[in-house]
Amino acid sequence: MISFENDYSEGAHYKLIKALVETDMVQAPGYGTDPFCEEAKEKIRAEIGISDADVFFLVGGTQTNQIAISTMLKPGQGVLAAETGHINVHESGAIEYTGHKVLTLPAHDGGKVDPAEVLHFLKTFHGDVNNDHIVYPGMLYITHPTEYGNVYRKAELQALRAVCDEYNIPIYLDGARLGYGLMSRESDMTIRDIAELTDAFYIGGTKIGALCGEALIFTKNNTPERFVAQMKQHGALLAKGRLVGVQFRELFTDDLYFKISRNAIETAEMLKEVMHRKGIEFYYESPTNQQFIILEDERMKELAKHVVFSFIEKLDDTHTVVRFCTSWATKKENVAKLEELL
Amino acid sequence: MISFENDYSEGAHYKLIKALVETDMVQAPGYGTDPFCEEAKEKIRAEIGISDADVFFLVGGTQTNQIAISTMLKPGQGVLAAETGHINVHESGAIEYTGHKVLTLPAHDGGKVDPAEVLHFLKTFHGDVNNDHIVYPGMLYITHPTEYGNVYRKAELQALRAVCDEYNIPIYLDGARLGYGLMSRESDMTIRDIAELTDAFYIGGTKIGALCGEALIFTKNNTPERFVAQMKQHGALLAKGRLVGVQFRELFTDDLYFKISRNAIETAEMLKEVMHRKGIEFYYESPTNQQFIILEDERMKELAKHVVFSFIEKLDDTHTVVRFCTSWATKKENVAKLEELL
Amino acid sequence: MISFENDYSEGAHYKLIKALVETDMVQAPGYGTDPFCEEAKEKIRAEIGISDADVFFLVGGTQTNQIAISTMLKPGQGVLAAETGHINVHESGAIEYTGHKVLTLPAHDGGKVDPAEVLHFLKTFHGDVNNDHIVYPGMLYITHPTEYGNVYRKAELQALRAVCDEYNIPIYLDGARLGYGLMSRESDMTIRDIAELTDAFYIGGTKIGALCGEALIFTKNNTPERFVAQMKQHGALLAKGRLVGVQFRELFTDDLYFKISRNAIETAEMLKEVMHRKGIEFYYESPTNQQFIILEDERMKELAKHVVFSFIEKLDDTHTVVRFCTSWATKKENVAKLEELL
Amino acid sequence: MISFENDYSEGAHYKLIKALVETDMVQAPGYGTDPFCEEAKEKIRAEIGISDADVFFLVGGTQTNQIAISTMLKPGQGVLAAETGHINVHESGAIEYTGHKVLTLPAHDGGKVDPAEVLHFLKTFHGDVNNDHIVYPGMLYITHPTEYGNVYRKAELQALRAVCDEYNIPIYLDGARLGYGLMSRESDMTIRDIAELTDAFYIGGTKIGALCGEALIFTKNNTPERFVAQMKQHGALLAKGRLVGVQFRELFTDDLYFKISRNAIETAEMLKEVMHRKGIEFYYESPTNQQFIILEDERMKELAKHVVFSFIEKLDDTHTVVRFCTSWATKKENVAKLEELL
Repeated sequence: MISFENDYSEGAHYKLIKALVETDMVQAPGYGTDPFCEEAKEKIRAEIGISDADVFFLVGGTQTNQIAISTMLKPGQGVLAAETGHINVHESGAIEYTGHKVLTLPAHDGGKVDPAEVLHFLKTFHGDVNNDHIVYPGMLYITHPTEYGNVYRKAELQALRAVCDEYNIPIYLDGARLGYGLMSRESDMTIRDIAELTDAFYIGGTKIGALCGEALIFTKNNTPERFVAQMKQHGALLAKGRLVGVQFRELFTDDLYFKISRNAIETAEMLKEVMHRKGIEFYYESPTNQQFIILEDERMKELAKHVVFSFIEKLDDTHTVVRFCTSWATKKENVAKLEELL
Repeated sequence: MISFENDYSEGAHYKLIKALVETDMVQAPGYGTDPFCEEAKEKIRAEIGISDADVFFLVGGTQTNQIAISTMLKPGQGVLAAETGHINVHESGAIEYTGHKVLTLPAHDGGKVDPAEVLHFLKTFHGDVNNDHIVYPGMLYITHPTEYGNVYRKAELQALRAVCDEYNIPIYLDGARLGYGLMSRESDMTIRDIAELTDAFYIGGTKIGALCGEALIFTKNNTPERFVAQMKQHGALLAKGRLVGVQFRELFTDDLYFKISRNAIETAEMLKEVMHRKGIEFYYESPTNQQFIILEDERMKELAKHVVFSFIEKLDDTHTVVRFCTSWATKKENVAKLEELL
Repeated sequence: MISFENDYSEGAHYKLIKALVETDMVQAPGYGTDPFCEEAKEKIRAEIGISDADVFFLVGGTQTNQIAISTMLKPGQGVLAAETGHINVHESGAIEYTGHKVLTLPAHDGGKVDPAEVLHFLKTFHGDVNNDHIVYPGMLYITHPTEYGNVYRKAELQALRAVCDEYNIPIYLDGARLGYGLMSRESDMTIRDIAELTDAFYIGGTKIGALCGEALIFTKNNTPERFVAQMKQHGALLAKGRLVGVQFRELFTDDLYFKISRNAIETAEMLKEVMHRKGIEFYYESPTNQQFIILEDERMKELAKHVVFSFIEKLDDTHTVVRFCTSWATKKENVAKLEELL
Repeated sequence: MISFENDYSEGAHYKLIKALVETDMVQAPGYGTDPFCEEAKEKIRAEIGISDADVFFLVGGTQTNQIAISTMLKPGQGVLAAETGHINVHESGAIEYTGHKVLTLPAHDGGKVDPAEVLHFLKTFHGDVNNDHIVYPGMLYITHPTEYGNVYRKAELQALRAVCDEYNIPIYLDGARLGYGLMSRESDMTIRDIAELTDAFYIGGTKIGALCGEALIFTKNNTPERFVAQMKQHGALLAKGRLVGVQFRELFTDDLYFKISRNAIETAEMLKEVMHRKGIEFYYESPTNQQFIILEDERMKELAKHVVFSFIEKLDDTHTVVRFCTSWATKKENVAKLEELL
């Protein structure tokens, strides 16, 4: 069996594992105050070009979204997101659990929000004289890449920035697969652009080379008050913070994060070519590591005997949408094998 | 410098690290559905002697307490706990964050609750005809060992069980340091007793040999509905659940969990003898791995140049209470060195 | 100035005020345990034909929705509602504040949900093998009349009932304007049908003759545990529960509730005829007491000098949608005056 | 039967009822924007001597406490209160329901907090270098009169103010029975002192002459952002805000609030004299309208045939603590009748 099921099927990149082995018996203080975390934070600050950015290490993506959003919002406020946004559909109501509403916007081109529609929403809300009955849109949530793997162009992110600045609300970017977005051939942004154009974002580790861990970054001297205490209150403060610190120190040494992200893109491009050669119809062809294709049901069942992939939805009585996913760990020979199987 | 600061200063026991290395590139499904988690659960079920116990792996102690308590309680209910209980004083209000009140009871002998006082509370509450204004005590939370390192005797836990059965409320046991409690010379319980006498408990990994991870166990076919979805909603569902599964599989192979717990007890007993020989006064002398002593301030400052320990509180103008902690990783030669320093 | 602004512009119907005056100095126990509440409950039970229905008096509609929904849902669940549903758009996120997601469905014909679409949602959710990431749809919320004043036909409510029964979820009906719905010429349901076909509903008093107050009814022996204590916990338990009890006792004496509701319908029908005679375009013409019309902006400004009505939304550069609302207190001569003004 | 059960047994003072009758058919805008509320606010501002104070009308005490505290606290913070404080023991966990912990202090002299103990708590917390695990004490809650009817002296409130100023946290005063406190013979404060020395407080109407309603006042230009929207989100925004506005307009016309409060004090003083003459032992003799006495059980049962009072707690096998309560509506002849019965 070869697997294109998702981008978190393996453990960690061997360099991260090696660093965990080497540092294992070093005694270090707890709760993220250890030297490994400190080094990792310095490396990230250098990479994004903001020397006073605040960096926090969390364990997973939903946890990071939940804490970032619930601490950035004021009581009573909601978060704007595409209706397909991860927080709206695939996090079991983790945002609402914290008491905040997800205010939805139409999703375009694989999950992007449209600056004009964000503007319209904010304008309408702020123009309403009797708005005590309506949830205040207190921030904008975007994913990059989006749920379906598309990337924002720099001009689009700048346009969102301008709209949000006009109404003075922050932008938070969910970077669960940030590396794959940045390495995409269609990306015209660097991580410095991301840092500059958002108020907070996270660099996903779980899906890009780490056993676990995400780096949440506040870029504008805007860290919520007593943020570490709030992490603790959410059950998200790791006693051995070093576990994530050691891994991110490696990911941001010698461009490892970007190099391994590139592997996912290269194998995804190979995969797309295979699909095209085999005449397979795309449901959504993305510029990153997730490809959504349409398979006739019988062919899907046959293929599933040899390859693991993800079910997305039934398209009609005889066809199904499935996802093929590459990752930092995908081997090119497996893409070749897939071609044979198809 | 030698450190007796806490029991989470190192990474993981080498056998756990080794297992992480060996399994690293095995592809496995996510969210705790992998074979490593399954094996670990089977081993735990065998160890506690309950073949249909439900086991879930979480990342840390506060997270585990928060999820267990908030899902076991019904809306509107509170949790009974010693006033010194971890959930009441050292978790930044993580229980209240989920909307539930911590109802406090006096703490005895290093943090135990007294069955008679639990009974009195429940009796008074249930006897009140007009109790819509009072929080319903919906479960009992205990720690074993307690915050100050004491252990419940089997007869005490049975007495609590009887009281809780009378009023039909569950007992949840916080086992952050469960191994140290079970290996204590004063313990007359096995892990099977714990499993039988509680409705849910967790086996702490973070403080006993793991990089991270706790095993939460529901022992009475009483798992809260859609528990995994609720973990997700709390931001506590690890994409690579294997990280904790692999470690617990090792901890429950060849009695590793108990063997390494015993090291903490043996070195704690050595430490206590050293303290006694040096005429040091105890604030609380525990039968497990945490020892609370009183140091004259000058002596404390001198000692702090060579040894790391934890500040607890100022006792008076010239004395301070500090904690010395041993662990699975404490070396006997370091206890000997401490004697020289004292 | 004459007002068609809303249906809560006046105080209470004189019979309710009179009853408040007459009972004022009677001493009675607190928190809804007084004889006035008891009588009112008995009258309501008789009216709906369910002798063991549980009735609770609350102060306002948002409060009632918030408490009913958050206590009927299990932790982690969400509530299905039309995207135009009051709880989704006009209650400042009161449901999300309690930690529950509002799951939206398309709105049809002035705000109805479609049984087939409810079925599709439930079927898709329950058919998903890996649904721990998706919010469980734990109940259906409907408004009757809907946000735009339409009414469900009995066959439609029966169809919703069948769908919800298939998936074993309750139906909760928001009856803020229930009387107006039942008195509508297009209604083919009685209050007994409403009670039979739902699991819980509320009879709105604030918009139909009361100073304040709604009667929340659980019809299927399904009252959430410790419901009064949960009301207290939400800050919704009135010390002088008699305030609402006295009023509902009057509303359900000699069919007062229905008689005064009929006035709103009769004046609304007059109003619609006036609009038609005057050639005014409807945005949404409802069979109850709210009429949504389109006015050319200049005409709107002119009219606003003499009549109060509600702004709904800008339709285009030169037209606006406004709402005219009748109520239990609307005088027929004011409708006549409006015709003159138009 | 004569009743000393509580201070909310009757409806409203006749002047309030009369005003409700007279204003009943006046059309007014909703949600507290009506002229009655505006007049009432002006009168309150004049009374407290703060022309820019923000006044909001709510329905009940628990609701007011819940909203004031949860909006004044920042996320993650807790509220300091006496362990006997109403929010800690008699509001069904309404504060915790909003996610905030009640941090308890010892209660003295019928429920007061001690400035020195508040200082010690704040000092210890702020002096703790590693306090991410401890809930931040973000405000002080006091009741005046206290749960057992005692009043703060001005010097005590000034001392609390000084302590809170030192640590920059607000004081919120629960004035459910504020009038009774101010009219007490032991009171050396006016309502202007209360307004000056606190950051927010509420003037209780439910227990002093109103059918329902409390006036919450922010005195220091410190109203929480979008406060009305947050009221709505808590289900606490009355559509017909006039109901409370009309009543408070009357209460603050011609000193009515203070005059009727004085009746409770005068009848309480009579009651105390009766008790003393009859040799009855006090559990707590208060300077306001609540008196806690100890009755031998047989005598209590006998008395209960003719008088209504409140059970507080069993003192021992043969004695019970009960409460006798006077109010704005208590008749002096009933106190005389009680003397006969004793």
